[in-house]
Amino acid sequence: MVSPMRNAGGAPIITLLTDFGSADAYVAAMKGVILGICPDARIVDITHEVPKFDVRWGAFLLSQAAPHFPPGTIHVAVVDPGVGTARRPIIVEAERCLYVGPDNGVLMLAAVQEGIKHVYVVENRRYMLPRVSRTFHGRDIFAPAAAHLALGVKPSEFGREIRDYVTPNFASPRVEGNAIVGEVIHVDGFGNIITNISEEHLNQLGIRDGDSLEVWIGGRRHRIKLCSAYGEAPVGATLAVLGNSNLLEVSINQGNAARTLGATVGMEVRVAPSSG
Amino acid sequence: MVSPMRNAGGAPIITLLTDFGSADAYVAAMKGVILGICPDARIVDITHEVPKFDVRWGAFLLSQAAPHFPPGTIHVAVVDPGVGTARRPIIVEAERCLYVGPDNGVLMLAAVQEGIKHVYVVENRRYMLPRVSRTFHGRDIFAPAAAHLALGVKPSEFGREIRDYVTPNFASPRVEGNAIVGEVIHVDGFGNIITNISEEHLNQLGIRDGDSLEVWIGGRRHRIKLCSAYGEAPVGATLAVLGNSNLLEVSINQGNAARTLGATVGMEVRVAPSSG
Amino acid sequence: MVSPMRNAGGAPIITLLTDFGSADAYVAAMKGVILGICPDARIVDITHEVPKFDVRWGAFLLSQAAPHFPPGTIHVAVVDPGVGTARRPIIVEAERCLYVGPDNGVLMLAAVQEGIKHVYVVENRRYMLPRVSRTFHGRDIFAPAAAHLALGVKPSEFGREIRDYVTPNFASPRVEGNAIVGEVIHVDGFGNIITNISEEHLNQLGIRDGDSLEVWIGGRRHRIKLCSAYGEAPVGATLAVLGNSNLLEVSINQGNAARTLGATVGMEVRVAPSSG
Repeated sequence: MVSPMRNAGGAPIITLLTDFGSADAYVAAMKGVILGICPDARIVDITHEVPKFDVRWGAFLLSQAAPHFPPGTIHVAVVDPGVGTARRPIIVEAERCLYVGPDNGVLMLAAVQEGIKHVYVVENRRYMLPRVSRTFHGRDIFAPAAAHLALGVKPSEFGREIRDYVTPNFASPRVEGNAIVGEVIHVDGFGNIITNISEEHLNQLGIRDGDSLEVWIGGRRHRIKLCSAYGEAPVGATLAVLGNSNLLEVSINQGNAARTLGATVGMEVRVAPSSG
Repeated sequence: MVSPMRNAGGAPIITLLTDFGSADAYVAAMKGVILGICPDARIVDITHEVPKFDVRWGAFLLSQAAPHFPPGTIHVAVVDPGVGTARRPIIVEAERCLYVGPDNGVLMLAAVQEGIKHVYVVENRRYMLPRVSRTFHGRDIFAPAAAHLALGVKPSEFGREIRDYVTPNFASPRVEGNAIVGEVIHVDGFGNIITNISEEHLNQLGIRDGDSLEVWIGGRRHRIKLCSAYGEAPVGATLAVLGNSNLLEVSINQGNAARTLGATVGMEVRVAPSSG
Repeated sequence: MVSPMRNAGGAPIITLLTDFGSADAYVAAMKGVILGICPDARIVDITHEVPKFDVRWGAFLLSQAAPHFPPGTIHVAVVDPGVGTARRPIIVEAERCLYVGPDNGVLMLAAVQEGIKHVYVVENRRYMLPRVSRTFHGRDIFAPAAAHLALGVKPSEFGREIRDYVTPNFASPRVEGNAIVGEVIHVDGFGNIITNISEEHLNQLGIRDGDSLEVWIGGRRHRIKLCSAYGEAPVGATLAVLGNSNLLEVSINQGNAARTLGATVGMEVRVAPSSG
């Protein structure tokens, strides 16, 4: 089992990712519950600004943050349009970390990338708040589960193991002739357009730093250079760059590419070496 | 006295709630002051997005979060339009926790719900920063007071006990014939319309889960069902639900009820069993 | 050397200030990296809402927050339009604290105000992540540097000392006849217009609390009173006040002065005693 204590010398780390926003008291209620059960837990916010009910968006951000946390970290993600219905609360025991949240896929992009070992339903009432509301399982089920995991309770003590958990399909890029065709998977706060096209995909086409590219986003063509840093292009110029997760980003140096280019999540992105 | 050390095994917890926003350095200055006085304090943000100067809004959020923190927690709330004027800084010693903030009611919804034991003015200069500004008592008075409480200083050492503290009147619902009449007390980030009508009030009218209700908000009538979870209604449908604090909420499954129904804080809400 | 351990009894404190916003996973990735290297670091957010690429804005906020943290605190500031280009990552050893960030001035307003002792380039790969991306030095260079400083690594071990670091010029007010001429250096979330005119400047003109002032902002004249607290003016009235950093602020009691008066950062501010 992944032990939250493997993080030598430190207290167990619990991260939180939700779509609750930061203007309400919901996140704080979860933190209060955690600290009441496991007083020395280290709580770290990933973000609470996931667009409401956007499970894929939350899954992407969790998959970006989780690899940077130490082994044994307990990640709680609550983007949960089905709260109070039949969807199950689960704990995922992965190779490095533990994941706690609803069985709707929000945990799975991160968990799959490190390798899933076991998935358990959270059904043991002993590890929930005495009174479970119908609208706030983040506080009543997920926060107490994370805190008990941090205390050392084994994932298998929370409920039975399941194999029919939800694993959402995230699109993979495909090669078409001399082009690679993927999609926009995220737009960050800088307006960087993040695609599912990785360094490996570009290598297949023989593309490397400094090359000129033809990039179609939402049907519009842009002739841009694959730079090694945003600042390599002039201020205001559009560029391509392999971003911090080795995924191709289309950016504007000190500008907002998504707004300027009209790009949104899900749009097709086609990349080819520039012919001329 | 409430001891901040009662929280066995953990460091003293200090929560912060303000209307300072998260774009400035004001909250960080408070945290720096706290850690300079009490290096092992655990600081937890409740929210800093209270609408500017909205004491009632802050009081509501504090009352929602505080019950979920362990006994001995020190809650600091700074929504303080009167900073630098004659309004007094106070410490409230309640049954479970300690509250620090201005004497304008922001602490009192939370403190009253757990029971007030004593209220003290903060007037002992020894527990303030050496230089007290005219505009930022959060940093100069309230943060140091909380940190000294966390160190174990008794509330009574900060100043004289008072009994004429401000306790704002929050409206209670009333029964009119077969209806209960309350008001909107909060709108959360999901657009859920939270009322002051509790499960007990609905029980008085014999209303239970699954019943059809007639709900008037701001004079407009809605015929909706009392659901046990948001997801029990179709996506986009309006519903009623007993929310996470056992207060009646009017919501739209995966939508924004407040925006759609035009509801704002203070609007009258009238609920009756549906006649037909 | 400044020792992060000087903060008796507490774990080393690391603060973070960025323009990353709170909606992405970038800040969390930095925290994960820090906790992986230094599990007992206390991480405190100053703000992540610095306007994108606005180095001066970030420098101002850091200079406001830093003095309130205990000696030995490690301040990380990442407002870094030049990430991945030739600009150098640096560590500033100042009189009380350590500063980590890009060599573009963002650290220097804070560092200069406490006194700079040494500035080192971060170039020792041993203290970076094994793979340094081209777009996210906050995670790959600055966070690990701060964590290693927190572990007790000496600043001089990170690289060679330099003297040609960037120190931006921040304008100083000047006296013109019976007026003092400065500028707007910040607008906070309340709409307070913060100038670079200090209490000392006003003393030079013989201005004191309660005096009437003529204040020109962006060429428009306002006759207002120097109050000792916001609440000393009627609600909605414009006033001047020496704010929490002893800088002259123009404010509206419970209103938004910057919006109402059309003030923005960089605008000239001229203050004189009111003639009549």
